[in-house]
Amino acid sequence: MTETAITSRDNPIFKRLKKLGESARARRDAHMTLLDGEHLLEAYLDAGGTPRTVVRAASLAADRLAAHARRCPQAKWLVLPDALFAELAPVATPTGLLAEVAWLAPSPFAGTPLVIVLEDIQDPGNLGAMLRTGAAAGATLAVLSKGCHDPWSPKALRGGQGAQFVLPVQAGVDLQAWLAGFDGQCVALALGERSRDFYTLDLRGPLVLVAGNEGAGLSAAICRAAGTCAHIPMAGRIESLNASAALAVAVFEAVRQRRTR
Amino acid sequence: MTETAITSRDNPIFKRLKKLGESARARRDAHMTLLDGEHLLEAYLDAGGTPRTVVRAASLAADRLAAHARRCPQAKWLVLPDALFAELAPVATPTGLLAEVAWLAPSPFAGTPLVIVLEDIQDPGNLGAMLRTGAAAGATLAVLSKGCHDPWSPKALRGGQGAQFVLPVQAGVDLQAWLAGFDGQCVALALGERSRDFYTLDLRGPLVLVAGNEGAGLSAAICRAAGTCAHIPMAGRIESLNASAALAVAVFEAVRQRRTR
Repeated sequence: MTETAITSRDNPIFKRLKKLGESARARRDAHMTLLDGEHLLEAYLDAGGTPRTVVRAASLAADRLAAHARRCPQAKWLVLPDALFAELAPVATPTGLLAEVAWLAPSPFAGTPLVIVLEDIQDPGNLGAMLRTGAAAGATLAVLSKGCHDPWSPKALRGGQGAQFVLPVQAGVDLQAWLAGFDGQCVALALGERSRDFYTLDLRGPLVLVAGNEGAGLSAAICRAAGTCAHIPMAGRIESLNASAALAVAVFEAVRQRRTR
Repeated sequence: MTETAITSRDNPIFKRLKKLGESARARRDAHMTLLDGEHLLEAYLDAGGTPRTVVRAASLAADRLAAHARRCPQAKWLVLPDALFAELAPVATPTGLLAEVAWLAPSPFAGTPLVIVLEDIQDPGNLGAMLRTGAAAGATLAVLSKGCHDPWSPKALRGGQGAQFVLPVQAGVDLQAWLAGFDGQCVALALGERSRDFYTLDLRGPLVLVAGNEGAGLSAAICRAAGTCAHIPMAGRIESLNASAALAVAVFEAVRQRRTR
């Protein structure tokens, strides 16, 4: 591979990459993003993506990247002084490797719909973790409200560990309208007076699971739109499970029922 | 309540609080910690704790704390200028309220043992989330290896949302020796050749679930010590679930079996 050295903040490629890392709007306009680290790059390549640019921090040995280089013959390779690289790196402990990549549009899953609907998950790590749980469970689609963090942000990608490359994601959706159009069972994960014991539900048909954010929980409007409200029964001395743990328990209970019942 | 104003970094109480926030050793020596925010203070009071000191940032209105003040008549109340308060606050978005409290020793749960054993969970937020999941599921005990983050650190407390006040926790434990002494089924949550499908296990008897950290997974020695190795079967296109999601699915599957089988 041939590397181009960039040493100035005024370099137009540097500016473009910086913008992609920082601005959800720039990412949306270009349908591109920055991803961070070898693991995510591998996952992106495994999913059939072709990176446009790969950026190495000068302190990361070039020969560590030889295997990746063989898999991205078309990419432009850049090397940056560590200080400049750190300005691009979206995470606290940068790995020394970034890639500029186009969003992927994973093909829809076949089979009985199992959709996760997320309302206003603002923390990128939580959002990524919930997408990762969905992808691991074989969810067929993730639908995100306008109030959710950008699923293609570098931090959400890190939280997702590749989930965004394999799970179809619709972002910026009007959830009430979407739920009204879904032909199947919609279950909002929430506590409350009319909330049912989640384990009493038959989850084998077309299913939507709706999860809200940590602090506020689901909005009343979304709970109404879902029709059914249910909760994971707690056996312990505290009555709260964090949102991503509750989603994990719920979505894998659906997986379990579909396998064994 | 009578408040004392502290305005200097040289104040001995300020120094003591700062040390408690920063040093695991100081916390261990004193069996005290700092907790952050009204929600955790309420949870601590609900669990029967009696805070020693309550600290307010000057910008937080004193009258918001009147209800708490009634519940901690014995506490010393301090008010600090915001800049000084921020130096104590262990989290990025401080709530304006800190309390200096003694560790609690929750009474053991009765009933069939359901123990979570955690190996080398170094991230405080993850550790807190796993303890919270355990507490919500009615785990009877949490056992932490020496390589785990301090469960009484301010960040782990925030992640736990009160779990540490209700779930008995043993920290700094030699896990191999502990597992050897447990009379019941020990299941290590790990992938691998001999790993069994988690859903085929009967989880109704005395049970230990062993979870490892995100990057490295469980050590081979701990998997051997556990005897049984099992994994949550993935239905999706990615083969990894984060450690706290996997633990949540596993521990609530035990809860489900105990309720319904």
